[in-house]
Amino acid sequence: MVKLIALYKQPEDQKAFDEHYFNTHAPITAKIPGLRKMEVTKIVGSPTGKSDYHLLCEMYYDSHEALKEAMKTEEAKASGKDLMGFAGELVTMMIGEEVNE
Amino acid sequence: MVKLIALYKQPEDQKAFDEHYFNTHAPITAKIPGLRKMEVTKIVGSPTGKSDYHLLCEMYYDSHEALKEAMKTEEAKASGKDLMGFAGELVTMMIGEEVNE
Repeated sequence: MVKLIALYKQPEDQKAFDEHYFNTHAPITAKIPGLRKMEVTKIVGSPTGKSDYHLLCEMYYDSHEALKEAMKTEEAKASGKDLMGFAGELVTMMIGEEVNE
Repeated sequence: MVKLIALYKQPEDQKAFDEHYFNTHAPITAKIPGLRKMEVTKIVGSPTGKSDYHLLCEMYYDSHEALKEAMKTEEAKASGKDLMGFAGELVTMMIGEEVNE
């Protein structure tokens, strides 16, 4: 499958970030048509101690074409707008392909 | 579950990196006792074009305790040594917890 990946750096206010992320952003994002699965990982550290990152979200689509189509929808636009509002400076977006799926 | 995450930046020589990663590093890493699942994602771009990243590897363990024990094994030390040799400058390691598992 194809994944849209969002990796978030540590926010200044972790509590406020999590509250917005889980109560507002994730529900908006979950509505995007074509989204097959959404996996959220809370980053809690690294093998050497702390991590610069706070959260990893992986959104699965059937194909690059399906992801492209999904990104054109109103739901995706709403998710993107919300994202830029609360985490534009914190997020790195990637598109990936599962190996050995 | 708990994940050990390795995120690799774009290597200068992608072909040489992939050859070492898939033929040498991944097989060494797969032998680490306690590893439940290893998911590799090839980063192919971002919603705005290119990405600074090349590969994401997620290694699943039952718990933080299991990960800690695994890291003490000879297999983990061999994997870590190999990693530093071919990608020490490229890799960011994180430890994460799955949300809503």
